[in-house]
Amino acid sequence: MVVELISVGTEILLGNIVNTNTQYLAEKCALLGLSMYHQVTVGDNRERLFAVLETALNRSDVVILTGGLGPTEDDLTKEVCAEVMGFDLVEDEHTRERISKYFKNNIYKEIPDNNWKQAMIPQGATVLDNSNGTAPGLIMEKDGKTAILLPGPPNELKPLFTEQVFPYLQSRQPEVIRSQMVKICGYGESQVEDKLIDLINTQTNPTIATYAKTAEVHLRVTAKAANEEEAKTLLKPVVKEIKNRFDNAVYTTKEEETLEMAVVRLLKKHELTVTTAESCTGGLIAGRLVNVPGASEVFREGFITYSNKAKRKYLDVSKGTLKKYGAVSEQTAKEMATGGVFASDADACIAVTGIAGPDADGEKPVGLVYIACYMKDKVKVEEYHFKGNREKIREQSVVKALDFLRRSILSNYH
Amino acid sequence: MVVELISVGTEILLGNIVNTNTQYLAEKCALLGLSMYHQVTVGDNRERLFAVLETALNRSDVVILTGGLGPTEDDLTKEVCAEVMGFDLVEDEHTRERISKYFKNNIYKEIPDNNWKQAMIPQGATVLDNSNGTAPGLIMEKDGKTAILLPGPPNELKPLFTEQVFPYLQSRQPEVIRSQMVKICGYGESQVEDKLIDLINTQTNPTIATYAKTAEVHLRVTAKAANEEEAKTLLKPVVKEIKNRFDNAVYTTKEEETLEMAVVRLLKKHELTVTTAESCTGGLIAGRLVNVPGASEVFREGFITYSNKAKRKYLDVSKGTLKKYGAVSEQTAKEMATGGVFASDADACIAVTGIAGPDADGEKPVGLVYIACYMKDKVKVEEYHFKGNREKIREQSVVKALDFLRRSILSNYH
Repeated sequence: MVVELISVGTEILLGNIVNTNTQYLAEKCALLGLSMYHQVTVGDNRERLFAVLETALNRSDVVILTGGLGPTEDDLTKEVCAEVMGFDLVEDEHTRERISKYFKNNIYKEIPDNNWKQAMIPQGATVLDNSNGTAPGLIMEKDGKTAILLPGPPNELKPLFTEQVFPYLQSRQPEVIRSQMVKICGYGESQVEDKLIDLINTQTNPTIATYAKTAEVHLRVTAKAANEEEAKTLLKPVVKEIKNRFDNAVYTTKEEETLEMAVVRLLKKHELTVTTAESCTGGLIAGRLVNVPGASEVFREGFITYSNKAKRKYLDVSKGTLKKYGAVSEQTAKEMATGGVFASDADACIAVTGIAGPDADGEKPVGLVYIACYMKDKVKVEEYHFKGNREKIREQSVVKALDFLRRSILSNYH
Repeated sequence: MVVELISVGTEILLGNIVNTNTQYLAEKCALLGLSMYHQVTVGDNRERLFAVLETALNRSDVVILTGGLGPTEDDLTKEVCAEVMGFDLVEDEHTRERISKYFKNNIYKEIPDNNWKQAMIPQGATVLDNSNGTAPGLIMEKDGKTAILLPGPPNELKPLFTEQVFPYLQSRQPEVIRSQMVKICGYGESQVEDKLIDLINTQTNPTIATYAKTAEVHLRVTAKAANEEEAKTLLKPVVKEIKNRFDNAVYTTKEEETLEMAVVRLLKKHELTVTTAESCTGGLIAGRLVNVPGASEVFREGFITYSNKAKRKYLDVSKGTLKKYGAVSEQTAKEMATGGVFASDADACIAVTGIAGPDADGEKPVGLVYIACYMKDKVKVEEYHFKGNREKIREQSVVKALDFLRRSILSNYH
């Protein structure tokens, strides 16, 4: 089954927004085992949308259109789609009621007249209720072709797609598709591919796809089978083999779990608390930990010691160390991590000091970063040489620091 | 002049990467006053790329193709483009030399054979030297149509476009296009539009476009004129009028200046230092300040006090205040900001405490955030009610905190 995406919106053509919906939908369609050959963006223009949609329906089986379902005159995705496919628009009582209710819940005084336009539905289309807005999604089927219309705002599109469109598309696939995520930290994308090259080249079911993220690599292992049980049976040995090859570098196999979630989970499991001592990352490691709801159980306070004076005052880094080795050194990183534990009541501390640039510090190059972790009465330090601009160097430092903390827990607590 | 974008790459169709090049190019083309009606993504497939390119050259004057210029068999943008437009491929001595040099500089032992493919150039095309990779950009002109080919990696595409393609496209425009950015914090997008509705509706030259960012609105004022001088003369009164209407809410009119850069600039100007006292934002405000190279002049240390105990220990927030008003209260925010200044030697402190969710805190709802700023012996506090999930609430808190600090400097120092 071939699926094509059409994004409707002049704001995308003007570059006002990044089109993240397309990537979201493309990934989900790949996950469903659907083929995708074209993605098209067109403005809020009747003739051009008409032409683009006609072409898409000719060359693809399913066309997913996003955007242009709003209440204004400019919004014409539904109208053009009904015309191209030959549907009449009729008022849908159910959607009308939902719109009334939506406005009532949001304490609006009056419902703008043009919102009723959104209750007009192509006769015979499947209506997908939208819990986060007034424009419902629509599925229109005719002559072996399908158009799926979704509202543009990601907070409306994503739940609609996950809850209603994904199962619909899945039900139309002759085979069951199941996938398993494996998230890896500590290897580059090409290293991961090298270590898996035999599997990647020989495996056709399940397949293995790699996704490069900042200082992480995500693998998606996808199996096609006649039923769920069989798909799981296909996935299991491959996922197991990957985990064997990467061992502790695999931080999770859960789709939604981020690195900071994995770290907080491990800290909670072992009833540990952590503090942070940050120089060049300036609070970003703590910021990532606090991303996790309930982080307060394991993280109570953090230190941002950007100046040498602050490193001495809050973390008790010695004047001699700073003078002899400099702020960006193995020794300073170690003293920061040790000082962090002693200054707070935390069980562990992760400390970072480095040169994010743009200027080097004497002989020390941009990208040189030391990360230290104090845990169970000992402190370890790792030296990194990151590439990229200031932002990239800091982002990589944060990921490596979180991962160092994670690996330290794994090796110290069983 | 109508321009169309074609992104070539199966990885985009699979959703492996977000296509940020398209937004970048679309914004720049809009800035040049070019019309864009279509953006298309197609995979590394000969027939489909051929068909998509033919259609694009039919309906548009200039087609910008990105990706598919690499050394592998899969990369066929140049070959297909030469075929569609009727160009012969010939080896370009200059490009061959550049490739040799590129590999020599990068300490590779051998140049892979397939890299020489990148020295083959459509005869008569303009070669755009690429300083960051081996694939040069190309401009191919024939029968009134133009194809511009650019490498896919953003760090290669962006400098190539800015330095070579932008001036080329500009030279082909009969008029000079100049634009001026105005960045605003403290108003929502619809508020900004309301306050400018008369200008937006009546102005045709310059035009005003709004771009909504997290808790910020950016305005781009764009003028067309016969020459640079005239364009500037057209821009000046409109920019002045916008600045009048938004006064202090305009934090910069510089294209590249971010909010944190504006804050650091003001702090430096008045020789002030600042510290941060963060609860729900957990280090993200400090993280933003440290984004700015040279932030060390104005920012030396920051406090992340996530627990009540840490608020007491480091910021001297009183037990009574925490008990009576709670951690998320006007009073606690004020004491955090005051304590931050006294604990550090900073001239000012920005403090944030709030409920980022997902769970409310008793009667206090998710999204309730207090931001306090201590400056010149007095402390002020602002109460916010943010919408969205945990991430959105924290992001908005960070922007509002930086802006509160900025406004405080403006009102306290002249």
